[in-house]
Amino acid sequence: MAANNTIRLFDLQLATGCTISPFVWRTKYALKHKGFDIDLVPGGFTGIVERTGGFADRVPVIVDDGHWVKDSWLIAEYLDEKYPDRPMLFEGPSMKVLTKFIDGWLWATAIRPWFSCYILDYHDLSLPQDQAYVRESRQTLFLQGRKLEEVQAGREARLPLVPPLLEPFRELLKGTQWLGGDNPNYADYCALAVFLWTASVAKTPPLHDDDPLRDYIDRGFDLFGGLGRHPGMHDLFGLARPEANAA
Amino acid sequence: MAANNTIRLFDLQLATGCTISPFVWRTKYALKHKGFDIDLVPGGFTGIVERTGGFADRVPVIVDDGHWVKDSWLIAEYLDEKYPDRPMLFEGPSMKVLTKFIDGWLWATAIRPWFSCYILDYHDLSLPQDQAYVRESRQTLFLQGRKLEEVQAGREARLPLVPPLLEPFRELLKGTQWLGGDNPNYADYCALAVFLWTASVAKTPPLHDDDPLRDYIDRGFDLFGGLGRHPGMHDLFGLARPEANAA
Repeated sequence: MAANNTIRLFDLQLATGCTISPFVWRTKYALKHKGFDIDLVPGGFTGIVERTGGFADRVPVIVDDGHWVKDSWLIAEYLDEKYPDRPMLFEGPSMKVLTKFIDGWLWATAIRPWFSCYILDYHDLSLPQDQAYVRESRQTLFLQGRKLEEVQAGREARLPLVPPLLEPFRELLKGTQWLGGDNPNYADYCALAVFLWTASVAKTPPLHDDDPLRDYIDRGFDLFGGLGRHPGMHDLFGLARPEANAA
Repeated sequence: MAANNTIRLFDLQLATGCTISPFVWRTKYALKHKGFDIDLVPGGFTGIVERTGGFADRVPVIVDDGHWVKDSWLIAEYLDEKYPDRPMLFEGPSMKVLTKFIDGWLWATAIRPWFSCYILDYHDLSLPQDQAYVRESRQTLFLQGRKLEEVQAGREARLPLVPPLLEPFRELLKGTQWLGGDNPNYADYCALAVFLWTASVAKTPPLHDDDPLRDYIDRGFDLFGGLGRHPGMHDLFGLARPEANAA
């Protein structure tokens, strides 16, 4: 049992102090959903192996009364298995499978294009000691060697193409308060993490002011005493419409 | 309680005798999942109001010991509510929400393009007395007045574009036997219904022989003693690869 109802969580932060990793974001929500206080270990992209005493080279990592667990999905499963008497993150095996599908869809539909629109912001907002690593690793691993500046350039034209792609998600939310039904669960924390990641890096907004997703996103960011409302987060809403630009 | 463990189901059939409607298909699977025998009322696209004594103008419709229910989703909910001691179709509220998402994705990704590739087959396979209605209603409601022949024309070039779009579904099935987890549930019956509809109308196959989806689809069609194996069904596999055509 977590001592003092508290679980340690290794964070992945920007210079603003806010979490950037969508995997850490969903773990933060998972821990709060299970009713735990979080003992947050600050830190950025580099030095994770050292911070975790060699346990992991990626976060999230949790330490629950001396027991270490890594990988956001495995952490959520661990929390449900270890604490079945607290509110469940997963409803059952089918909801787990189907959560992976909508999560994969949101990554392909939203994070993929937004990554290219915000990758220089992402770099510039990183901790000073992380910036060389962020530039080098992102250019090499994800961008086929292209420079961050080159990838982000021209985003004004690309950003308006993304909101229409989110229409199936808007349609789904017309019929339900949460992906969990009447209450949020891990499916919501996965979906919200996509927008939390975006808000952590987006120096210019990706969504229109009147986007019907706003209600869901705002409710999600407000959960657990405003867990998504760190002062380092950027406004997701305010993208100008192409029509307005043309006028 | 269903008399003699049997529930009546109003079908929507082609001239081959096989079910075409994906909504009837998933209701057939739902009834079998709950362990019922099906008293199938045959019939095609026309005369539904007459067959159901004015109860509905669309199928599926079930009659459970005198109690009439329409709409495939509502029928599935009715079956779980009325017979909670039999295997459940739905795992819970979150799985319901997430099933709607993957079902909507499959309709947009697969049924939408395949509809245009098979709409003349669909017409030609309909019962003789239904063909005028099928032509008129499909041309007016779904095809902006275009002729079925014109819409289906050129499908050889369009069919190869669809299998790559199904990659997220293949990815998902790498990690699980069924959308229900270790056993199929209503999420699977919704997904399978997309392919059952296609097999009912596809005079030329939409998927490649070596498509990894084949394992899932075959297992699904084999469920409940081969419920999807009506002799009127067409082979889904055998689409030539564009490379082979070009050679």
